Amino acid sequence: MEKIVSFAKRKGFIFQSSSIYGGLQGFYDYGPLGSQMKKNIRDSWWNFMINTRPDVVSVDSSIILNPKVWEASGHLKSFTDPLTECKSCHKRFRADHLTEFKCPECRGDLMDVRNFNLMLKTFIGPVEDSTSVAYLRPETAQAIFINFKNVLDTQRLKIPFGIAQIGKAFRNEITPGNFVFRTREFEQMEMEFFVRPGEEKEWFEYWISERMRWYTDILGIKKENLRVKKIEKQELAHYAIDCVDIEYNFPSLGFAEIEGVASRGDYDLKQHEKYSGEDLKYFDETLKEKYIPYVIEPSCGVDRVMLALICEAYNEFPKGRNFNSNNVETLLKLKPIMAPVKVAILPLVRNNQDIVLKAKQVFDLLSPCFVAEYDETGTIGKRYRRQDEIGTPFSITIDYKTLKDNTVTIRERDTMKQERVLIKDLLQCIQKQF
Amino acid sequence: MEKIVSFAKRKGFIFQSSSIYGGLQGFYDYGPLGSQMKKNIRDSWWNFMINTRPDVVSVDSSIILNPKVWEASGHLKSFTDPLTECKSCHKRFRADHLTEFKCPECRGDLMDVRNFNLMLKTFIGPVEDSTSVAYLRPETAQAIFINFKNVLDTQRLKIPFGIAQIGKAFRNEITPGNFVFRTREFEQMEMEFFVRPGEEKEWFEYWISERMRWYTDILGIKKENLRVKKIEKQELAHYAIDCVDIEYNFPSLGFAEIEGVASRGDYDLKQHEKYSGEDLKYFDETLKEKYIPYVIEPSCGVDRVMLALICEAYNEFPKGRNFNSNNVETLLKLKPIMAPVKVAILPLVRNNQDIVLKAKQVFDLLSPCFVAEYDETGTIGKRYRRQDEIGTPFSITIDYKTLKDNTVTIRERDTMKQERVLIKDLLQCIQKQF
Repeated sequence: MEKIVSFAKRKGFIFQSSSIYGGLQGFYDYGPLGSQMKKNIRDSWWNFMINTRPDVVSVDSSIILNPKVWEASGHLKSFTDPLTECKSCHKRFRADHLTEFKCPECRGDLMDVRNFNLMLKTFIGPVEDSTSVAYLRPETAQAIFINFKNVLDTQRLKIPFGIAQIGKAFRNEITPGNFVFRTREFEQMEMEFFVRPGEEKEWFEYWISERMRWYTDILGIKKENLRVKKIEKQELAHYAIDCVDIEYNFPSLGFAEIEGVASRGDYDLKQHEKYSGEDLKYFDETLKEKYIPYVIEPSCGVDRVMLALICEAYNEFPKGRNFNSNNVETLLKLKPIMAPVKVAILPLVRNNQDIVLKAKQVFDLLSPCFVAEYDETGTIGKRYRRQDEIGTPFSITIDYKTLKDNTVTIRERDTMKQERVLIKDLLQCIQKQF
Repeated sequence: MEKIVSFAKRKGFIFQSSSIYGGLQGFYDYGPLGSQMKKNIRDSWWNFMINTRPDVVSVDSSIILNPKVWEASGHLKSFTDPLTECKSCHKRFRADHLTEFKCPECRGDLMDVRNFNLMLKTFIGPVEDSTSVAYLRPETAQAIFINFKNVLDTQRLKIPFGIAQIGKAFRNEITPGNFVFRTREFEQMEMEFFVRPGEEKEWFEYWISERMRWYTDILGIKKENLRVKKIEKQELAHYAIDCVDIEYNFPSLGFAEIEGVASRGDYDLKQHEKYSGEDLKYFDETLKEKYIPYVIEPSCGVDRVMLALICEAYNEFPKGRNFNSNNVETLLKLKPIMAPVKVAILPLVRNNQDIVLKAKQVFDLLSPCFVAEYDETGTIGKRYRRQDEIGTPFSITIDYKTLKDNTVTIRERDTMKQERVLIKDLLQCIQKQF
């Protein structure tokens, strides 16, 4: 895992937030490659969960909601972790993470455990008092439930249907850690899928299998690195009917949650109906019956998925695959749709104006369709290596032959095979690989 | 403008946030159509500003930054609005928005003006005190400056180059208003373009013209509804060399800012160098010289751009264009790339299994490439009207003839012209329109 963290920083995937000021614990920034890759993950989820389905629509809600939302959802009262503090060194710990009740740092005695609410607080308007308190959402899900009626009233949806959203959420973790695995600011991709009461079991199974399909078939994660862990009855939240964690086998960490799929019954909508006084029932035209739908919720974190993808793709070779190097070489075997850069445009030399001009034309041709990087510095071998390291599936070289016959070479990252292609066929040739 | 607000709510573009709890002043949620359209705006900006340029890279930083960032940038000290309060009714106002010094609500006397900081405050970690205070970023720009060194160290960029990002920002506005024009939570699209000192003037002009090109050529806003307003010397921030507002002519509001393009000199990087102690200079290989680059910043708001686009596209017709209706009809003339739904898939009838099956096949064919809506309820005329209202450029009808010859009709929103096309040519036929 240390290797991954250092790789992610070195290549511009993930930086500590505010790093020139010593960082801020539990916060991270995504660099040029990380931000493109994050966008790939979001876009892929959006396409899989929303656009390619006639039965799912999207919303995009504010991060700060009316505080009554958190009263109704139960977060104000019980979204807490047990917190304790060492009487000697005053370090703070999550009591449920300790194996014995001594300070793990200095062996001092610990204080009594108190419940610590994980929601980040702020104040809206010019006065800071209890009437102006608001919270940063600790999950995007509630912002879907409170828009259930709006969506129902404005769209033409029939049960079963889903409402999905992607957005930031904040949790004041007592002990953030494991790189971007547990942070205080993170990005969620959540969907609430509303079904007829009684049909929740089949939809629960359906969504577990759909979500697994996304990880394996679309993102390219190996089946053996994924696990569906059933949450036992006694560990379920009081309102949950059923729940599984989809876990990825992270280096050092071992299997850890990247997604939860929960069968939440009608708990949330019922609570919001009770607290808001609005009628949140659905009229089922087929059954001629009004009811509060049951809900299945697949919920995953962009940051964790990205970490899993980098771990999955990270490969080292103990010398050049066919290069003469004494160092370890890195190859990031991302599926093309997940790669931050899709094509590298490499003029063989930079001191030939015709070659440079052609290379720029190729960049202009490809960049509206594929994230492209133009790189003219260093030997061509070094430039290929750099693209291998960041997972670029295709490198295109513009050379002297290009000037004669308008062909370029396409080099494929994993096989290192090169093929000559006419510039006019290039776009289509690359399109076929996606 | 009232019409636009009601239209946006009725069709599922924009809702008041937490509306079932009476809302929250200055916060909005985007519904199914609004969230798709917002994504279109983001994607278009990202493509225009980052992907199609070899000289611009992206970042995606956290919303909560180390508070020292805001000390260095000057926001802690001077990101304030003058606040006053009525001694009688206790309503609060921005002093610089008042035309006289009486309460505009009850004519009472006003209190002394004090500076009110617009940054939203929160606390990180288990203790709420001055050591744990942090702020939600009031702009995304500073998160770019503090990553300048990270980007420089990990990428192969030569001046001039840009770093861009899209993300949420928060301002505790004293008087939010005008729908999504002035909100407390909003989304920015900002780029910092780093140039050689001395070359800032030409790059400033270049970016103003590029940004105007985005609004007119890409988004399709009419030139006469846009205006570039020069900010006069005496109104400039003390560090700014030059600044313009790009304004859109909103109904009721008149010309108002949707984007600012600022020539900020080396102020920000210099401040961060001073406060962080890090060397933020750039080594210019051509000049063999180290310097802090000057910066040009085009900065716009997703929410304002979206409001401008809806205003621009909103058209009413005093009866059917060729429909028999007594009501006013709405037509949303969005450019296809900005339309929330690109194609509607409409089976002529829903009680013919073969037609419905074909329609679903067409949905599966198109939806991976274009946001598609499947709608089988109501007469075909009503369904066309509904698609016109939400700006869907193409409606595809699957009818009895489809079953015989595998053709469908494509109806174009603005001309209402219909054309029969083979299903196998459909994807390409629509692709050509984008």
